[in-house]
Amino acid sequence: MAAVVDACQLGTGFYFQRLIEEPRSSFWPKNCSFQWLSKGFLSKPTVLKSSPLPFHGGMSYVQKKKGFHVLSPNISSPSTAVESLEAWDDEYDGVIINPESLPSSANAFASALRASLSHWKLKGKKGVWLQILEEQSDLVPIAIQEGFNYHHAESGYVMLTYWIPNEPCLLPASPSHQIGVAGFVINDKKQVLVVKEKCPCSCSGLWKLPTGYINKSEDIFDGATREVKEETGVDTIFLEMVAFRHAHLVAFETSDLLFVCMLKPLSYEITIDEKEIQDAKWMPIDELLGQPFYQEDHMSKKAIEICIAAYDNRYSGFIAHQLVSKFDGQLSYLYYDRI
Amino acid sequence: MAAVVDACQLGTGFYFQRLIEEPRSSFWPKNCSFQWLSKGFLSKPTVLKSSPLPFHGGMSYVQKKKGFHVLSPNISSPSTAVESLEAWDDEYDGVIINPESLPSSANAFASALRASLSHWKLKGKKGVWLQILEEQSDLVPIAIQEGFNYHHAESGYVMLTYWIPNEPCLLPASPSHQIGVAGFVINDKKQVLVVKEKCPCSCSGLWKLPTGYINKSEDIFDGATREVKEETGVDTIFLEMVAFRHAHLVAFETSDLLFVCMLKPLSYEITIDEKEIQDAKWMPIDELLGQPFYQEDHMSKKAIEICIAAYDNRYSGFIAHQLVSKFDGQLSYLYYDRI
Repeated sequence: MAAVVDACQLGTGFYFQRLIEEPRSSFWPKNCSFQWLSKGFLSKPTVLKSSPLPFHGGMSYVQKKKGFHVLSPNISSPSTAVESLEAWDDEYDGVIINPESLPSSANAFASALRASLSHWKLKGKKGVWLQILEEQSDLVPIAIQEGFNYHHAESGYVMLTYWIPNEPCLLPASPSHQIGVAGFVINDKKQVLVVKEKCPCSCSGLWKLPTGYINKSEDIFDGATREVKEETGVDTIFLEMVAFRHAHLVAFETSDLLFVCMLKPLSYEITIDEKEIQDAKWMPIDELLGQPFYQEDHMSKKAIEICIAAYDNRYSGFIAHQLVSKFDGQLSYLYYDRI
Repeated sequence: MAAVVDACQLGTGFYFQRLIEEPRSSFWPKNCSFQWLSKGFLSKPTVLKSSPLPFHGGMSYVQKKKGFHVLSPNISSPSTAVESLEAWDDEYDGVIINPESLPSSANAFASALRASLSHWKLKGKKGVWLQILEEQSDLVPIAIQEGFNYHHAESGYVMLTYWIPNEPCLLPASPSHQIGVAGFVINDKKQVLVVKEKCPCSCSGLWKLPTGYINKSEDIFDGATREVKEETGVDTIFLEMVAFRHAHLVAFETSDLLFVCMLKPLSYEITIDEKEIQDAKWMPIDELLGQPFYQEDHMSKKAIEICIAAYDNRYSGFIAHQLVSKFDGQLSYLYYDRI
């Protein structure tokens, strides 16, 4: 099942393998009934009551349904209850309000929301999802007044939820983590690709590995190669994930996971991103670790020591295998060691 | 540096080691100037402009400062500009508005916000962080009208940001990931601890590993042992993290990482959590994988096969080593294989 796609060995004793593995076939239908389930394999579907409907503005109802399994439209027709909100049922006895159908008048919204909640309570519904787009932010205080809670927000919208049953809320918490990546790129002269960031803070001047956050819905290995390319202009491919750090309270109440990725260089010429990077170069590995910072920072030092062990073929991390889960019918990556 | 704290071997050929490692000493001061930095080791501090100040209501200014390095209070005194908002500078040329000092009147807030933004623009400030507590949600539309964007939200508050410079915003994105854990607990009769969830969806009836989301600021191994204890009543200790799945669009636009953890049972009697779990038992491993579900779900099947390989000592995953990073002066966990 797990076949190495490409392998070559450089003269340095470092096995370069493209260890992102592909499945033999997409054997699971994409629109199966598991698609709405939440946490993927081995997951706890009862905890997550939401659907993965991408609710950003500008899409029609048909577009929203595309690729997703909408259980049943729960749309009140104008003749039956003019003041009810348009909504869909989800798979967990909940409802998802259509953010594009919200009345623009605050008063109309307040009465429609109240009427809809009464209706859903009678129907035994549980979680209610209400996305309010930025342009209708005057509806936010009304929803709060009706008993909604903030769930999460991103540029452009805020999501609120309401738990109807008289028992502890089982809706999932808001996302809590950012995912960062660090790229360890080493050439056959044992020189590591390092950057010096434009940084107003006290670590400025330090030569370090290129790092950054992954983009929305981006895979870890793609984020690592993209960040290295953006910051230094060097092309790479992902080999393995050698270690990760889990840190808390890094920004207000959020946490993050930073994955250290071993990347193989495919090009060597450096072109820096002048917005973020002050300088970049290939630096002998002893010189990198010889900086005073690494004598005091045990976390960074250990991570680089592990990378060196992987380079010397004394260590193996996790590689990415693309597999299909029956829970959501999606292809996604399982990271694990060679087995 | 990385010493195994406790090790024993059961008769099954399975090495049980308590592989959460402790540092020899807390050698880095907790309140060093790196504390505000964002992403920890090998990180990109220029990207994250926020501070880890826990801003929930009810704390005094002194309490807020406790344990954190507040660079300089940026508080307007009543005599100089009555309409300015109380705020602190952060380390990235940004300001953090004190959410407890916001005027309760919408008009007063609007004029104070406008005056403060003008003042900060003149001072060359960059990112502005504005947390609005639930009880003042009527201020949200005003902030949006002044050009603020939603950043993130959690039950009780919404966070908005404003980027002053006439260049692309470098403030970090909102958290994008939830972190799930699955516990593989196996006894010396090769029976695995499995649960059947109370689940209205199409996977109901499946015997599977106990799973759940980690709590805010909880470590992965703590989340795994807690979930197993909550769902089944069985006490365990963490041994190693054997694999993880990265999935996207699991709930609206969010992603999640699900870490499969090998846990050693310390007790065997089962007491189920009746809210979430329909049943739990110790099940022979062949019977677990023999369920029709696993013939079709390659993701789950592979994960369990890896767990079995670890049990048979044919595989090693990542263990958790507690280390200090100079970037934030905090103890946190680096997960990596034995080296």
